[in-house]
Amino acid sequence: MDTSNSEKKYVIGLDMGGTNSVFGIVDARGNIVAQTAIKTQGYKDFDAYVEASVQALDLIIEQVGGKETIQGMGIGAPSANYYSGNIEYAPNLDWGDIVPVKEKFEQALGLPVRVTNDANAAAMGEMTYGVARGMKNFIMITLGTGVGSGIIVNGELVYGSDGFAGELGHFVIDHSENARPCGCGRKGCLETFTSATGVARTARERLAQSNEPSLLRSLDPEAITSYDVFKAAEQGDKIALEIFEFTGYILGRSCADFTTFCSPEAFVFFGGLTKAGDYLMKPLRKAYDEHVENVFAGKAKLLISTLQGSEAAVLGAAALGWEC
Amino acid sequence: MDTSNSEKKYVIGLDMGGTNSVFGIVDARGNIVAQTAIKTQGYKDFDAYVEASVQALDLIIEQVGGKETIQGMGIGAPSANYYSGNIEYAPNLDWGDIVPVKEKFEQALGLPVRVTNDANAAAMGEMTYGVARGMKNFIMITLGTGVGSGIIVNGELVYGSDGFAGELGHFVIDHSENARPCGCGRKGCLETFTSATGVARTARERLAQSNEPSLLRSLDPEAITSYDVFKAAEQGDKIALEIFEFTGYILGRSCADFTTFCSPEAFVFFGGLTKAGDYLMKPLRKAYDEHVENVFAGKAKLLISTLQGSEAAVLGAAALGWEC
Repeated sequence: MDTSNSEKKYVIGLDMGGTNSVFGIVDARGNIVAQTAIKTQGYKDFDAYVEASVQALDLIIEQVGGKETIQGMGIGAPSANYYSGNIEYAPNLDWGDIVPVKEKFEQALGLPVRVTNDANAAAMGEMTYGVARGMKNFIMITLGTGVGSGIIVNGELVYGSDGFAGELGHFVIDHSENARPCGCGRKGCLETFTSATGVARTARERLAQSNEPSLLRSLDPEAITSYDVFKAAEQGDKIALEIFEFTGYILGRSCADFTTFCSPEAFVFFGGLTKAGDYLMKPLRKAYDEHVENVFAGKAKLLISTLQGSEAAVLGAAALGWEC
Repeated sequence: MDTSNSEKKYVIGLDMGGTNSVFGIVDARGNIVAQTAIKTQGYKDFDAYVEASVQALDLIIEQVGGKETIQGMGIGAPSANYYSGNIEYAPNLDWGDIVPVKEKFEQALGLPVRVTNDANAAAMGEMTYGVARGMKNFIMITLGTGVGSGIIVNGELVYGSDGFAGELGHFVIDHSENARPCGCGRKGCLETFTSATGVARTARERLAQSNEPSLLRSLDPEAITSYDVFKAAEQGDKIALEIFEFTGYILGRSCADFTTFCSPEAFVFFGGLTKAGDYLMKPLRKAYDEHVENVFAGKAKLLISTLQGSEAAVLGAAALGWEC
């Protein structure tokens, strides 16, 4: 990230979400100096999406002094592979199995591009500008519709042999016969418990298991969301509180196990579910302390990301732009 | 490891086992040019052990041309910490809680010293001279009295925030109430299943669960070893074969889960239990293939170390000596 004596004082970061694509032009200090966004879906094909992106980008690139001020572009996208530069088999995007993101954007934009998956981009953002600033070893866990992770070891992202490392959402924590089916085709993955949809699933299970009164009983079970559970917990609803107790317990216990890999300085949690705050974090911390091996006791911090909304992902993707 | 134009053409490697301490003087190509050994235990204190070591070493150092030909010394020892240079709380050594290995050897020997734990040293040995040569991402799993691991990411050992990373033997794979107690004070760790003692424990459980005939029934259950189980398996004993089936299943399933962390190019298995060969590796490979997430299917190699006896650990420790 040597930006001294250079005209290239900005990078572009793109956080490509399932719904929105947010673009930021970022300076070396991590200030987002210009921003724009387009819808991610609804185009004829990927080429049309890239065209719309470049159109939106051209306006803000102009604002900061033109393309020659820009070092490169980093893209954080679901199922994106740092090595290949492609989005590969993304379940929630309909552009085909293999989408050559890096190649298409480089052609259309005339700038070098790096891609990585969204959780990795968030980890880069936290390390460069967030609560993990200065840390060389930490694990970022994103708790959204699914569960993703970005792992930093010795100050570098862990990409593994194929670019797909850091899939802790698909670590199987329940190997029993009747474990919860997962979108990955297997059963019992962490994601089936500690994602927003996992919380809703736990809610449906708990409500079916007893006749105990709960605010959640007024809702259509199939339509219950983790936000409904949060609202009920805020009103002291016992079942809602138990759902977060259980979710935090599973996540804390799992993190205690993950510690044996890389003894991280911190776990950083990010995404919608972290809005539950202490309802999630208190049982999470308790379970972590109870389950972690003695040699690691009291060492890792359990933190909620302080970067708001898609900021971490835009900044993280942008940080990748400096590699160009 | 720049050894060009240097008089320092050798390093010393020490593999400190619970029983024997093996020393090797190693050249830049990984040839052990001189070797010696002493007992690890039975000295008055650690100072006396160091004195005996230096005495034994002096003889072979003389053989290769004296101390000025030696760059430094690497030590692989149980519970040794790369960062602190100490052995910390080793359950099987009686030199006290904190043993300043690096400091004591540097003083006594007059050479720079680096230390790491035995599994990490074995991983370094595999990467530098063994089946993992040229690999940048792999997981070494040692199957001895206990289960240890050394994890290589981006070509570097994973030490984590405190030097204790790579403790996969203490990844909890059975969170049930009545899980097997582990030496670490918790329950259900991988080590309670896939170590030599874990295999013996499985044997006692299986024998107690049925009256099926078995060669193992002629032995005192408390004295059964993994070697007894291996000998019985070689004679086609059904219960002995089932014990390895189960052990391989647990290890293969666990490795499938570990893949989500760092997507390694290979798992390398090392230590006494690997002598069981296909009795262990066949069910291990089957369970791995059945449990690994689709995106990783068919990618990681499952290999047995080709470095014999303590060679991997001596060479690995020696490799650390080049860092001096």
